[in-house]
Amino acid sequence: MQGKYRALRLNENGFLEVIDQTKLPFVTESKVLKTTNEVVEAIKDMTVRGAGVIGSVAAFGIYTACMEVNSYDELKEKALLIRESRPTAVNLMWAVDKMMELLKDSTDLVADAKKYAIELNDEEASESQNIAKYGADIIEEILKKKNKTSINILTHCNAGWLAVIDEGTALAPIYEAAKRGIDVHVWVDETRPRNQGASLTAWELTQSKIKHTIIADNTGGHLMQHGMVDMVITGADRVSANGDVANKIGTYLKALAAFDNDVPFYVAIPASTFDFEIRDGVKEIPIELRSEDEVKYMRGVDSNGEVREVLITPKDSPAINYGFDVTPARLISGLITDKGVCKANYEEIKKRFN
Amino acid sequence: MQGKYRALRLNENGFLEVIDQTKLPFVTESKVLKTTNEVVEAIKDMTVRGAGVIGSVAAFGIYTACMEVNSYDELKEKALLIRESRPTAVNLMWAVDKMMELLKDSTDLVADAKKYAIELNDEEASESQNIAKYGADIIEEILKKKNKTSINILTHCNAGWLAVIDEGTALAPIYEAAKRGIDVHVWVDETRPRNQGASLTAWELTQSKIKHTIIADNTGGHLMQHGMVDMVITGADRVSANGDVANKIGTYLKALAAFDNDVPFYVAIPASTFDFEIRDGVKEIPIELRSEDEVKYMRGVDSNGEVREVLITPKDSPAINYGFDVTPARLISGLITDKGVCKANYEEIKKRFN
Repeated sequence: MQGKYRALRLNENGFLEVIDQTKLPFVTESKVLKTTNEVVEAIKDMTVRGAGVIGSVAAFGIYTACMEVNSYDELKEKALLIRESRPTAVNLMWAVDKMMELLKDSTDLVADAKKYAIELNDEEASESQNIAKYGADIIEEILKKKNKTSINILTHCNAGWLAVIDEGTALAPIYEAAKRGIDVHVWVDETRPRNQGASLTAWELTQSKIKHTIIADNTGGHLMQHGMVDMVITGADRVSANGDVANKIGTYLKALAAFDNDVPFYVAIPASTFDFEIRDGVKEIPIELRSEDEVKYMRGVDSNGEVREVLITPKDSPAINYGFDVTPARLISGLITDKGVCKANYEEIKKRFN
Repeated sequence: MQGKYRALRLNENGFLEVIDQTKLPFVTESKVLKTTNEVVEAIKDMTVRGAGVIGSVAAFGIYTACMEVNSYDELKEKALLIRESRPTAVNLMWAVDKMMELLKDSTDLVADAKKYAIELNDEEASESQNIAKYGADIIEEILKKKNKTSINILTHCNAGWLAVIDEGTALAPIYEAAKRGIDVHVWVDETRPRNQGASLTAWELTQSKIKHTIIADNTGGHLMQHGMVDMVITGADRVSANGDVANKIGTYLKALAAFDNDVPFYVAIPASTFDFEIRDGVKEIPIELRSEDEVKYMRGVDSNGEVREVLITPKDSPAINYGFDVTPARLISGLITDKGVCKANYEEIKKRFN
């Protein structure tokens, strides 16, 4: 599998190795996660991030935990630590629960966990390919309808191959469209406070030679108002049974602007992102509250090429940092899933997925 | 007048002196503007910014220009330089045109320009006081309706006393409400890319001892969805005859969220902000395109207290930087002006102001 999942891999020594995403786009560096604690820390401090990659890392995290325990009961405790490392990502819980279910009757935890984690990741990679295909079909439809040959797509946060193996979710249709010869340009929301767009998405698109322009998160409304956006595609961390979408904070504002300007707004997700327990996403999906320092401090490179963190606010002014918001289903044109495109409503989601 | 207009003053030597707002909130420093070129540069590089303060500086800029010329015809050339230093701010053009009209038949340009600039600024100061009063009345109404004693107000960019003499526009009602004993808390949009909220508004509110919390621009929608915002007040750089509002990029997104969640959305402006030549603001108001470096680089203080600029994106990724957007009148609850509160529509604006 080496080289196949770009944000993570099992290295030559059988340990989980991940790209340290906190250092991108300035430094490309890997980290080996040898213990459950290291896996938990990597998820918490966002060394790894993105719904899919967190799930993938969690699956290999269970394998890592297996190397530290003597019984399934002991494994359960470790699994709980991993499961609770980030509160919003449903893939994390899903991957942990699935691994634990598969391992229930195992007599060789380490070997079985490795096998199951690899299987689970291969499955996710093929899901990404399906999302790419269904999404690119929509891009082609939009171009046909507008009688255009080039498309401007706005995206928020990072849902490319740094976020979800193999080609991501939101960016997968863009990569596929480029492969099909379509002239694609991406508006990249910088995605404050952690700047996943300006750092990760822009970096990833540069690696993949996709035309793009970074914009402040404030800019999308103006662009849509003036016909400069043909389509919005974002990923999601959790989608409720009624089609409400929890994604990076600010997604809701872009969905409002898209709706106000008749710009199609799509959310690309693997089916594992659905949380059928939740009937009303806006009311019920818990929203992670992160450190105010992510708002108050900013990381970048200075003129000497050194990575530095600077304070950008008055020292004593408080800040608050909600990690996600929930976009109501009524604002969403469709969900691009690995099983095909689905309307964002209870009936269709239930029919197709439950 | 010393001490009365906080963002600018005529100093002891009769020169225009301004707070250098590019250095806030880290360094409090003044700059003396002795020539027309220095005035133009200060407006261009945002040493001074904010619709009102730009107008005030422009008025004193004409006085500064008078010290360099021998005739009204020569003054005209200098005036044009000042008038064209920023494209979106209607107050700038208004102040220059008004000063030039007043000086048309002057036989002592320097003395007259000084007198007229002071008069014009005293007038604006009293406008700010009126906006404070009318706005605070609305705050009291909202509290009464909700049967509450404390209010959460969201604001975007900086429209306080750093932006408009004497107490600003959007922040003036907040200062007045606090004076009336109301428990006010302000959600401060950081306002990327130049961070006027996180730096200037937060700094100004700290100076004025008003409770506040800085948020990423992405956050307002989530807060409004969950009842955490009672009201939005912003300033404006230009308001068209039909009530469309040009203000800092991102204002439109907050207006959409306010509308979607039944949160009152008010725009506080002196009457000079109206541009009656423009009938359709969304289509016709020109939007300033600023340097991409404002998106790609960020300024702050490092752990040694030194002000540094850091690159926050991949070096070669392009960015685009629209300075403003236009919020359609249909999303605006009302315009808080120095002449009272006015609905944002053509008929009422015409009846009241034209």
